[in-house]
Amino acid sequence: MRNPAPIASLPAGASAGASRCSVLGALTIVGDFWTLGLLRCLFNGLSRFGELQRELGIASNVLADRLGRLVHAGILERVPAGKRHRYVLTPTGAELAPMVLALKTWGDRHLTPQGPTWIWHHAGCASPAEVQVRCPDCGELLDLPDIQAAPR
Amino acid sequence: MRNPAPIASLPAGASAGASRCSVLGALTIVGDFWTLGLLRCLFNGLSRFGELQRELGIASNVLADRLGRLVHAGILERVPAGKRHRYVLTPTGAELAPMVLALKTWGDRHLTPQGPTWIWHHAGCASPAEVQVRCPDCGELLDLPDIQAAPR
Repeated sequence: MRNPAPIASLPAGASAGASRCSVLGALTIVGDFWTLGLLRCLFNGLSRFGELQRELGIASNVLADRLGRLVHAGILERVPAGKRHRYVLTPTGAELAPMVLALKTWGDRHLTPQGPTWIWHHAGCASPAEVQVRCPDCGELLDLPDIQAAPR
Repeated sequence: MRNPAPIASLPAGASAGASRCSVLGALTIVGDFWTLGLLRCLFNGLSRFGELQRELGIASNVLADRLGRLVHAGILERVPAGKRHRYVLTPTGAELAPMVLALKTWGDRHLTPQGPTWIWHHAGCASPAEVQVRCPDCGELLDLPDIQAAPR
């Protein structure tokens, strides 16, 4: 797939700040249900077209479209594996892990009172990995009231 | 708005694990471009219908729909302010901050070589807030190779 259209885009009427915003820019690449759902599966270790299709129950044309977009965006690499292929996160794609883990943390807390169905754990010591927002200078853990958004 | 349909949903053919997954569950609530784009604006301090509409250039019926869904999901609260209303993140909504900041971090790194247009900084010491994935036991900063996903 060459130069797929963005998965979504801001209308021409959006503000100049919104048009240059990196969050909204990232959302034009990954900001839809299937793309984010696929990332969840890839981070959980699934990598083959058939595995991904069975996991999500996704239509094959939609799956092919989203995988193609992620490859085009440099988030996935299509790697030959026997007669088929595997879809593997590139280093750029792997850097989306904190976003998926943050979403999982929120979902675990608010949507699954019976506890998570799977965990991401530290391979070294088996504890569930945690997403933290910290100040890199003073090391303090930050909650929303500790954070101020400001134009740069 | 009472009981809006999910913003997206898994087909009946999805796996049992996917159907119970907190990431995919969270995506049925926030997993679309406009909803995530609105959260970005709300975390940046915008709160009024007109402000949000001007920032994103979003159609008013779509904006009303997404705000209604977020209120219904307990992520936003509609607070009277003069003759109009403000939309304010609830504590549940505020807990989505790490996810938005993680998306911003990825976008800042890969999409805006000229630097971010806005920063989230620590109110106490002005440094840009950082999203970190850590092991809560040993305190180690974790990269993807340090993390293993496993069913619980």
